[in-house]
Amino acid sequence: MSVTTAEPARATNLVTTRSIELFSGENQLLLDSGRHFGPVHVAYETYGTLSPSRDNAIFICHALTGDAHAAGFHDVTDRKPGWWDALIGPGRGLDTNRYFVICANVLGGCQGTTGPSSIDPETGRPYGLRFPFITVGDLVSVHSEFVRQLEIDQLLAVVGGSLGGMQVLEWAVRFPHQMRAAVCLASAANLSAQGIAFNAVGRRAISADPNFQNGDYYVHHEKTFGENGCIKHGEGGPRYGLALARMLAHITYLSEMSIEKKFGRRLQHSDQLAYDLQRETEFQIESYLHHQGSRFIERFDANSYLYLTRAMDYFDLAARYGSLELAFARAQARFLITSYNTDWLFPSTQSEELVTALLRASRDTTYLELESVYGHDSFLIEVDQLAELLVPFLEQTRQMVR
Amino acid sequence: MSVTTAEPARATNLVTTRSIELFSGENQLLLDSGRHFGPVHVAYETYGTLSPSRDNAIFICHALTGDAHAAGFHDVTDRKPGWWDALIGPGRGLDTNRYFVICANVLGGCQGTTGPSSIDPETGRPYGLRFPFITVGDLVSVHSEFVRQLEIDQLLAVVGGSLGGMQVLEWAVRFPHQMRAAVCLASAANLSAQGIAFNAVGRRAISADPNFQNGDYYVHHEKTFGENGCIKHGEGGPRYGLALARMLAHITYLSEMSIEKKFGRRLQHSDQLAYDLQRETEFQIESYLHHQGSRFIERFDANSYLYLTRAMDYFDLAARYGSLELAFARAQARFLITSYNTDWLFPSTQSEELVTALLRASRDTTYLELESVYGHDSFLIEVDQLAELLVPFLEQTRQMVR
Repeated sequence: MSVTTAEPARATNLVTTRSIELFSGENQLLLDSGRHFGPVHVAYETYGTLSPSRDNAIFICHALTGDAHAAGFHDVTDRKPGWWDALIGPGRGLDTNRYFVICANVLGGCQGTTGPSSIDPETGRPYGLRFPFITVGDLVSVHSEFVRQLEIDQLLAVVGGSLGGMQVLEWAVRFPHQMRAAVCLASAANLSAQGIAFNAVGRRAISADPNFQNGDYYVHHEKTFGENGCIKHGEGGPRYGLALARMLAHITYLSEMSIEKKFGRRLQHSDQLAYDLQRETEFQIESYLHHQGSRFIERFDANSYLYLTRAMDYFDLAARYGSLELAFARAQARFLITSYNTDWLFPSTQSEELVTALLRASRDTTYLELESVYGHDSFLIEVDQLAELLVPFLEQTRQMVR
Repeated sequence: MSVTTAEPARATNLVTTRSIELFSGENQLLLDSGRHFGPVHVAYETYGTLSPSRDNAIFICHALTGDAHAAGFHDVTDRKPGWWDALIGPGRGLDTNRYFVICANVLGGCQGTTGPSSIDPETGRPYGLRFPFITVGDLVSVHSEFVRQLEIDQLLAVVGGSLGGMQVLEWAVRFPHQMRAAVCLASAANLSAQGIAFNAVGRRAISADPNFQNGDYYVHHEKTFGENGCIKHGEGGPRYGLALARMLAHITYLSEMSIEKKFGRRLQHSDQLAYDLQRETEFQIESYLHHQGSRFIERFDANSYLYLTRAMDYFDLAARYGSLELAFARAQARFLITSYNTDWLFPSTQSEELVTALLRASRDTTYLELESVYGHDSFLIEVDQLAELLVPFLEQTRQMVR
């Protein structure tokens, strides 16, 4: 019997977000829009140790509102670890005793990587809407270059869910030699029209907020550091609009079943209906959504939300490469695709499209539709289920002759 | 062969919205909240002729944003007829050669029946949020009294979809002797938690709009008459918030399949992506939603939206009467229930709950899950399919011995 606990002590599990500058000087990034851009600072964290042969690195692509802080604690006083901590660590699904795990904040984000809330070196003011238009391809180009700077020729795997899964797919097609395996969770080759519709309403909530000021709201918007060491986006800006966008998006991340199970029609304040129109949080589900909205605006930047949801809308692997099959014909990696039976934002039918095209393109492909009540959020929650797949898949990949 | 067209000439199909005052003086309405309220003006229209024995009347309960103008034209210059015109008229599903069809705007509405935008006789100003809290039961109490004022002892049928279907169910339970048949389309005994969640976000969009001013925005909000003779709610008020609420709600009325079929990822302005964040309507689905939002604010009042969505949230037939079976044990009517296979706001499972409880309560019950790509909106669109059911069901009801 071991005396260590399953949850390592925080003091032994401390991580720091680091930063690297890319695309500086003449080496600007050529964006999909045709525009050049640089420099780009990339915020990143690593967990575990890179092997001497530099062949055990796994890159995590985070989803829409994620960040580089995927695991561990920034400080012994932190109440919560990184966002995928249950999956990343010694003996976990992504075992840091075996693998060197990297996570970096995306281009256009607001947690350390250059984005619209960053200072434009040319003006000394935040970019705001002068930040260039970005695509999922641009997000991937930045992280691909970052991996080259780390002197890692080939990643063992790139892993991501939702917008992270889109990055995985794009990366496998755009830089095929840079990974041995691609793990795409709860994602798709394009966002559905319904998904675009929800994004459109979220963006409208932000742009219609009078405090949006066409994206130049940063004058009262100083970045500080929050409790967990992440950048805090607090004062000023379209807070109502951003909270509203988050409330709406949050509904799409849950399944009807999980909302029904967790909240149903239960009341927040008592067991009596108030018959009061001004009570905005009468039902528990309302209170929960308002809480999600309020929390979100502390950590996220409204302009980043606009840019990154638009990048999701634009993502369309089939359109870009002629067809999905033609896209995947460029890939070299083996693929693990998962979907979740209650995910209605990225339904299983969209993963099945991926699998069909991968098979047509003769790619080594494993697909599982996993069962979970948690809807789209399942890939963040059902970590044990995921670990059961990832552990043998990664081990198998590692043992395969290159 | 007939020389008349299927669409009768507008000049022969003119209707007028009339108004009746109820609950005046001492005869105030006792609301479910315990408060008394009056007077209530009810805006209504009728189509067809009441039979001498007054036994051929069918009452239409409209949905959330509907009104009394269900059929015909207000003026020969109107471009569009009433909202259910395809179902109501000579030879149609609700055949005005046989039936006397009545439709009335609901309590709390904004198309002629007393609601928050009406003048409070005590203050001479619009009620705003001083309008009393109302329930689906209160909506039904008003229309039930209105039918008594018309000296109709028993309606042949009460018909409605969505919030209209909730009124049908409540009416059948609350005033069982007042109808021979209840037709409940795309509805449920309660709104799902997910439905409450969407309503909560829509209400928040309105209340967070700085022009909401706690409901007292009417100072620049003069009612006029729009092109089709309906009341126009134009200037002032939380227009951004109300449009946003409508855009969101509209997504829930469509099926994923219908959005995909109608819009997919097609672009609005050209066949080239603009790579421009400030283009808010790049995809056709975005343009469509923005258009829906803009149109809606011309005809609807934001306070009415708050009151009526809250009434939907509160509706819970099982909670009110102990159980659904106990609720329906009070009913006398025969029931026709329909759901639509692509309706995810009021899914078929919720109609099946109704049917199970109706059967347990020994009610004469017909249920059909209809196929349609149009999601929740199907009951408004798939009129021929509905007519095929309604024509024999109503005829059968009429021929049954009372």
